[in-house]
Formats: sequence, structure tokens, C-alpha cells
Amino acid sequence: MRLSKYYVPTLKEDPADAEVVSHKLLMRAGMIRKLTSGIYNYLPLGLRSINKVAKIVREEMDRAGAMEVLLPTVQPADLWKETGRWEYYGKELLRFKDRHDRDYCLGPTHEEVITDLVRGEIKSYKQLPVNLYQVQTKFRDEIRPRFGLMRGREFIMKDAYSFDKDEEGAEKSYFDMFEAYKAAFSRIGLRFKPVQADSGAIGGDFSHEFMVLADTGEDTIASCRSCEFGANLEKAKVAVPDGPDMTGAGCPAMEDVATPGAHTVEEVCDFLSITPDKLIKTLLFVVDGKPVAGLVRGDRELNDIKLRNLVGGNEIEFADEALVGKLTNAPIGFAGPAGLDKDVPVYADSELKLATDWVAGANKGDTHVTHLSLGRDCAVAEYADLRVIEPTDPCPECGGAIEFTKGIEVGHVFKLGLKYSEKMEATFLDENGKTRPMVMGCYGIGVSRIVASAIEQNYDENGCIFPPSIAPFEVCLISLGGKDQDVADKAEELYAEIMKMGVDAAFDDRKERPGVKFAEADLIGYPMQLVLGGKGLKSGIIEAKDRKTGEKIELPLDGFAEAFASWRKQIWNNWGLSID
Amino acid sequence: MRLSKYYVPTLKEDPADAEVVSHKLLMRAGMIRKLTSGIYNYLPLGLRSINKVAKIVREEMDRAGAMEVLLPTVQPADLWKETGRWEYYGKELLRFKDRHDRDYCLGPTHEEVITDLVRGEIKSYKQLPVNLYQVQTKFRDEIRPRFGLMRGREFIMKDAYSFDKDEEGAEKSYFDMFEAYKAAFSRIGLRFKPVQADSGAIGGDFSHEFMVLADTGEDTIASCRSCEFGANLEKAKVAVPDGPDMTGAGCPAMEDVATPGAHTVEEVCDFLSITPDKLIKTLLFVVDGKPVAGLVRGDRELNDIKLRNLVGGNEIEFADEALVGKLTNAPIGFAGPAGLDKDVPVYADSELKLATDWVAGANKGDTHVTHLSLGRDCAVAEYADLRVIEPTDPCPECGGAIEFTKGIEVGHVFKLGLKYSEKMEATFLDENGKTRPMVMGCYGIGVSRIVASAIEQNYDENGCIFPPSIAPFEVCLISLGGKDQDVADKAEELYAEIMKMGVDAAFDDRKERPGVKFAEADLIGYPMQLVLGGKGLKSGIIEAKDRKTGEKIELPLDGFAEAFASWRKQIWNNWGLSID
Repeated sequence: MRLSKYYVPTLKEDPADAEVVSHKLLMRAGMIRKLTSGIYNYLPLGLRSINKVAKIVREEMDRAGAMEVLLPTVQPADLWKETGRWEYYGKELLRFKDRHDRDYCLGPTHEEVITDLVRGEIKSYKQLPVNLYQVQTKFRDEIRPRFGLMRGREFIMKDAYSFDKDEEGAEKSYFDMFEAYKAAFSRIGLRFKPVQADSGAIGGDFSHEFMVLADTGEDTIASCRSCEFGANLEKAKVAVPDGPDMTGAGCPAMEDVATPGAHTVEEVCDFLSITPDKLIKTLLFVVDGKPVAGLVRGDRELNDIKLRNLVGGNEIEFADEALVGKLTNAPIGFAGPAGLDKDVPVYADSELKLATDWVAGANKGDTHVTHLSLGRDCAVAEYADLRVIEPTDPCPECGGAIEFTKGIEVGHVFKLGLKYSEKMEATFLDENGKTRPMVMGCYGIGVSRIVASAIEQNYDENGCIFPPSIAPFEVCLISLGGKDQDVADKAEELYAEIMKMGVDAAFDDRKERPGVKFAEADLIGYPMQLVLGGKGLKSGIIEAKDRKTGEKIELPLDGFAEAFASWRKQIWNNWGLSID
Repeated sequence: MRLSKYYVPTLKEDPADAEVVSHKLLMRAGMIRKLTSGIYNYLPLGLRSINKVAKIVREEMDRAGAMEVLLPTVQPADLWKETGRWEYYGKELLRFKDRHDRDYCLGPTHEEVITDLVRGEIKSYKQLPVNLYQVQTKFRDEIRPRFGLMRGREFIMKDAYSFDKDEEGAEKSYFDMFEAYKAAFSRIGLRFKPVQADSGAIGGDFSHEFMVLADTGEDTIASCRSCEFGANLEKAKVAVPDGPDMTGAGCPAMEDVATPGAHTVEEVCDFLSITPDKLIKTLLFVVDGKPVAGLVRGDRELNDIKLRNLVGGNEIEFADEALVGKLTNAPIGFAGPAGLDKDVPVYADSELKLATDWVAGANKGDTHVTHLSLGRDCAVAEYADLRVIEPTDPCPECGGAIEFTKGIEVGHVFKLGLKYSEKMEATFLDENGKTRPMVMGCYGIGVSRIVASAIEQNYDENGCIFPPSIAPFEVCLISLGGKDQDVADKAEELYAEIMKMGVDAAFDDRKERPGVKFAEADLIGYPMQLVLGGKGLKSGIIEAKDRKTGEKIELPLDGFAEAFASWRKQIWNNWGLSID
């Protein structure tokens, strides 16, 4: 593509509203433009990258036996009412009425539509399994869209849905997709890690997220330095340390102690001159409308997703001040397990079994209790893993050392089980003529987000550094002849030669200063730059720059094709990629 | 693709709600499924055809120098308010609010968004021309969606927008697109005709529609048997017949005649024993809120688009009964040019100049006038071409014979001029440093509709007949071995060979009866069928069937690749196509 005739409106300055590097650079490199909050135009360069991501994803889906379809953006409310999500989905589901006053929504996901599609067609186990996927524009009305393509409202997603006749088939479908995702992300050239994830909200049995590792990621991943274990913080199990069970063990009699104005763990510990691991933190939640208490040690953080899953609920939120007052007869900050409203079940983190003689809130204003024994002084409904893993915890699978890294979720696979097929009656006749619900899975990849996350993982002060697999163009040929017709002619010749090799090339044939051309090539982040100037032409060489390492070498003009092909192969290999 | 593992839910019966053949066959061939009124799921086979159409269209757009972008589905109301279309667009524009109560719409077209995009970036004549296109899902909330993909609410469109510095550039951009459209429709393999079209509603200077010729088309095209002239009925000029100008010419004095109960042309002519060509039909309209009268001869039909354009308005509709009563002091059926409310301008078809002594409504109940002389008895604001062309009219360009054919609009090119750029202040600095609005054009192709129109143009009682360029698969290899392993093995071998040739093949390896396989291959409409059975294998031949003509030939298994390649070339040629 000749840049003299291409629409690449680069910007010199970072846009004012861009907070993260991918947003800044996508804007500056002329790849996207904002239309309105969380909604972007994809310009030619940006769309090229997106299409390359989509192509790789499609190839891996096809290879795994999934079949491409395209489902509508506008979905009727009726289907969402069948699964109950019309009510539960929240405001991210943009609802509206058509001219005939019928209810619709903009599809944020397609479980309902796809289940409706197959329930009309698949009648026998002989037609299963089926895996259908699409690459499609989704809409989620985020309350605070931000970070450009990282958290937009309208975005491009690949979503796939599998239907199987039994659990075994569904697990195979799940792991086929798992492998296809690994293959796709590997071919895209990103450093990534699949981690265990919670599947509570969408429902289903188990799930993994695929995380692109980047310091700027919004998510934190706990992974093991020794084994394969990796999980997001919501999901990561915590190994229960060994030790004698002190549940119900005695200690001096519990007594109230005045702690005027001491609400927080820190304030109470200061006041009583104890360390936080001697204190029980009592947190009150509402799960699906019912109050629940969760206990963790004072130096730990409670994982509300674990508590919600333990209770078996859909929605969890903190109890508000009024409810806390009602349940504890005290302001916020003085809740404790002993003397709490009797209808509130108390769940305690497993670790709390291992000690006694606790400090906790007294359910009275400005008062705590000391010498609390769980089991003796209050009832605990269940001990379970309820806390957020910490970097000092051992790996819950092998006991090795844990490390925390930041990641960006670019893919998510769910084993859904029967959640949608039962509600929507997507059934089939099995080998024995018995009607059974299909066992489902769903699988998403954030296609437009991948382009942003590739930048979050690979950039420097000069701009983007794209992997060759998804760069808008693999190589930029920069002609520096100025008015030197010989250089211009030779550059044309080289461009033709590169195109003939089937390489995706941008040709900077513009009448711009060399500095402008270099800066823009760096900004856009073509993995390879080829520079031809007057001197080079005289000496029979073209300068080749690896954008990632900055390393420059000279390729001979005589025998260029071969030398370029070999250098190109090396560049791909340095990214851990092979040329298709 | 192995049909044993492919999702093709064919139907034996026509769906009850399908009125046109493409709708029936797309459903029956398992290519689409209805989600809800006017909104369809594209199944694997249907999506393949759509993608092939889109690929050809993209290639021709790229060749013409247009650049692909992707613009959002959800558009903010503010932009539509700038052009005034937020109010004027009507209910096809689906409007809604987001969670923050801001107004949005689902994009039925993208003039506003694209103009907003470039006005922020293009500042100099040096950056022009620019032509940006996208292949995107559009939404129009049709009052009565029907005919499957022919008139859906959600559909796939290619839309392009050109920006030029002057009229000359804009015309070049227009005709570049015109040629690109011709190239694309030719490569798709459809019989089509570009016709002159009205550009009133979207605004702009001139416009052509690309019509796929099909008896089932909703549109009527007037075209010349001798020259290149073609126009849709809205637009088609009518040649004014020669003859002396009788405007204001005398005749016996005008007099009232009672015509009790005679409202229609037919009733009045019967009552007065005259032929309709002696009568003036007076039609009352409201154009942008103001009443207007249009006159045509009793045997002609008034073209309201021509009248609207003559008046220079945006919206035209019939005057309602109350207004007719007010303007004529009579019920509907007795309006006439003489004695009409003086504030209503009267426009007459040119043909009315050529005669005098007319019969017309008297603007009194149950009364007409005879001996009316236009000019003598009433004022005519302007004579102009106001009627709908008829098959008996001569060609307005060469005088040759006209024929009427039915067509389906699949493309539309508009020279928009300054309509959007002026309202949205999309300006640039010209060579003299003067600020000027960009000159725009817009160009649409109905990508999903093309698949339906290909079927409307090519089908028989057994199913679809796809051109090889856009068939879901070019060829279907039908294995008829039953339990004969030799046939199955040979079929596998042939399938591998065809795939190796880079030909897009479906392989019917299912355990189905031959009759089922033949019927489905015909229904889906693969242009080529290859049938291998036990007998064929023994005699060393494979039967090859041309779906279009039904012609069957035998290809040798020995030297199959060459024989198949040659037959395939012939099939493409018979469609007027060459293999890419």
C-alpha cells in the first residue's frame, strides 16, 4: 500500500482523554478514532490489524471443527425472558423498543439466540456435537467505558457455542476450544497464560480465562513458579495451612472492651496493641437478597466471589449501613460473630480454625470483644476457603512459590452445562429415545481488545511494536530519495519485488522529511523497516531495522529478495512465530 | 467440507411465512433462519455466499482506490441533529437511550458518522480525494419487513463515501465507483442494469441504481431497446410529443355539468361518453406542509417524485380529505384547476399544452366542467414532465422503443454534492487558502440482498442455482457407495484431489440415500455436481452435472484433475465468468 494514497491520520500529541498506552498509541498511529463514549471508528490501519487477528482466530476455530455463522445484533426480549436474564443482566444490556413497541436489546452475548437456533433444528444425538462460532460486533453499555479498545461499549468479539449430548462430549468440546485458543494466541504472538476463572455469573461448571501478560493489565493473576497453576484472584484457591483444629477450643472468657472510635482493623489493633492476625474481620453481605456474614483474619482480604459461590447465590453486595445497623445494633465497624442477629449465617475462612482467643467486633457501638473462641462463643455455619490469595501463600496445587502478575483478559472459555438448555428446552433424543437437554459450552475472544493488548505488551517511547502476525503491515519500505529520481525508481522496484513475494508491505513514497517518515514508522510499529536512500543506493545496500530490538542490518540490493526473505524469517522467529 | 460434519439444516417444506422464492429457498437450503421479524441468522452455507459476495465487492473497492474502515453500529443523536435527519428520517431510524439517558440510533446509513470522522482530520486539498468504505451490519426499522433477505430490518451492506475538493473530482469519484460496481456485479455473475434514479430523498445531484433483472423484482425499470437508456419509473423522463402549443387556446365557453356520483376518471368518462385523454386529472398534494396541485391527462399517471422535485421539496404526500374539502369546497373526486383555492400553485404535465377543450373537476360536489382551456380559464404555474413513463412512450433519449422489466435494487450510487459537508462544516483549505466544503458522494451495495437476488434470478423447481462465483461451495462431490468401501475410498481420494486444486468443494460423505443427496445438492444449488457410484468406479468414470442446464457428462477417473479443470472452466464461462 502506498502511504501517499492511504488514510493514516497520525497525531503528534497524546489525546487528552487517553489514560492507557494502547489507547494513546492507537489514536496517535491513526488506527482508531472515537465516535462517542466507548464507541470507536476503526480506520484502515486499525481494521487491518483486527482483520489479521480475526483471520487467525477463524482458522483455529475451523481447524477445531467449529462452523462459522453470523447472528443478529438486535435480539428480541422474549428469548432473554426465557432464561431470566432480561431481568438479571443489569444495565449493561441495552434495551429498547422498535416502532411497534416490541422489546429488544443489543446483543452483549448470544447464548439465548444460539440456543434458540439449535433447539429448532437439532433433534437427535446423531446431529451432535455441534460447535458454531461468529466474529461479530457486540454492545455492552458499560457504566464507565474507558481505555480505548480495552473497555469499550461496542467491540468485536469471536464467540463460539458448543452443544453436546453428554458431559464427556462437553468436556472434549471445552478442551478442544482450550487448545484452539492456545494455538490462536500463540500464532498472534502474544505472551499469555490460561488461568482458572470463576464461572459463577454466566453459570456453569468450570472456566478458564486467557490472559495477555502486561504490567498495565487490569487483572491480577496468581501463578506458580514451579507448576502450571494459574488463576485469577477471584478464583485462586488458597492452600489451608497445616495445624491443629482449634474450633471450639477454650481460652479466657470472652469480654467486652471499649474501643471508642476504633472502626478499622488498623485502629483496633493500635488501640489494643495487637497484630491484625489476632483479630477476626466480620463482613456483612447480601446474597440474592439475604444477609450473610463472612469472617477472615484481620490481615486477610475476603473474596466475595468465593463467599457467593459457597452460599450458592447469583448476586453478592455489601450490606448497606441501615442493614448493618439492624443486624449489629451498631454503626459500621463493630460487627462480630458473637451476638450477631441469629438469622444471619456465619461463614468463616478455613484459616480461622487454626487459632482461638480472638478479638472481634462486639455488635455494640465503640466496643470489641477479646478472648473470643469460635464454636464456643458463636456458631459457624461452615469453614471454607474464603480469602483472596496473597503472594506469600504457597501454590494450592504443588506448594511451590506463587507470583502475582498483571494481565488483560482476551479470551474466556466456559463449560456451561445445562443452564441454558434446560431453561430454553434445547433437548434431543438420546440413543435410548429419551429426551435430554444438550450440554453446552461457550467461548469468547475479544478480537478488537487483542489489538490493544498487543500494544500494552509491546511498545516503547516511540510507539507501537506489533508482532508481524497482526501488524497492520509487516514491513514498511521507506524511500528517502527526496528529489532523487534514481532512488524513487529503485524504491518502486523494491516495492514491486516485496509485493510479488506476497509480503504485506506499506510503501512510504510520500514527499515528507526523513525524520517524519522514521518517526511515523516507529509510531505505527511495523515490525520491519527497510530504508533506501541515495547513499544506500550508491553502495548497493538497503538498511533493515527490527522495530522490536532496534537492531539495524544492511541487506544487499543485489540479491535482495533472498536476503530479505531470510531476515524476515529471523524476525518472525524472534517473536516465536513462523511465517504461515 | 464434509457434509457429514457440517451444519446444513435443510427443510422439506416451504416455510409458511415465505412469500418469495429466495426466502423459501434460503430457508429450505439451510442457509438462513429467522430470529424475529426482519432479522435473520446466517447459517454456515448462507454466510459463505455472503462472504464471497463481500470479497468480490472489497476487491473492486480496493482496486478503485477506496480504503476499508469499520464504523460503529450505535450512533449518537447529536450528529443526526446537525444534518436535521434526527427529525426527518422517520421511524425507520431506530432511536433509543443509553443508561445515562443519552440519545442514540442504530445506523441505517453512515453519512453523518463518516463526515464527522473526516472533518476532524482532513484540512487541506492535498489530502483529497479520499474514499472510505465498509462492509457492515445496518438496521432499518421497516414498517413491514418481508421477503427474507430482500427487505429485512438488519442486513449487511457495503457503503462507501467519497470526499473531493471540487465538482470535477466528485464526478470522477462517482464514475470510478460506477465502474467498480459494474465490475463487481459482473464478477458476481448477475444479469444487471444500471439505471438512472432519483436522488431526492438522500439529497444530491444525480444517482444511479444497479438493478438485478428478475421477474420477481419489486421495482420496474424502463429501458430502451435501441440505446443505453435505463431508468427506474420514479426517475424516467418522458419525451414530450411534438405538436402545436395550445396553451391559452380558445374553445367554447367553460360550463358546469352535473356528474352525480361520478368520482373516478372511468365514471366521469362513462357518464359523459368521452375517452380519458379528453379529461384532466387534478391531484392535490402536500409538499413540506404546503398544498400543491398536479395535473395529468386522464389516461396518465402522475409521478409524485417528479412533482416533488419540481417544487423543490423534501416530503410529498396526498392531501387528506379535510384539506381537499377546504381547497375545493367539494368531496374527493371533483377537484379541477379552474376555481381552485388561489393559494394552491398548479403544475401541469407538458402533454397538456398540446390540447384544449378539456373536461375537469369543477371544485363543486357532483359537478365537472367541460370546454376548459388551460391558460384561459385558470393559471398554470409551470408545465413540466410530471407523468410516469408508459411502455408505449418512446425512449426519451433516442426515440426508440421502451420496454419495462422488473428488477431488484442491489446497488445505488449518489453524487451528494455539498448537502452533508455544508451542514456539518466538513471543510478544507483549497489551493488559494480559501475554506470550502468537501464535495461528497455515497455508494451502497446490499451484500446480503445480493445473495437473495441471485436466487430470484436463478432457480428452478428443484432449488437454487448459484453462479459459481458466490455459491456456498462451487462443487458438490456426492459419494454413492453405500457400504462399498472401494467407492468411499475413491471418493475420499477425489475429494483430496479437488481440495488440492484449490477448489471450494462440499463432500457429501453422509450415510443418506442417493435420492436425498441428489435432492439436497439441487436444492442448495451448487453449480457443479460430481457423482461417484459403484458402477462409475467400475467403468472408471464420474458423472458431472451442470446444475444450471442439467447437462450431464462423464469425466474419466484416470486423468480426473485435468478433465475436471477443463469442465469447470467451461461452467464458469457459461455463466459469463472467468475463474479468479
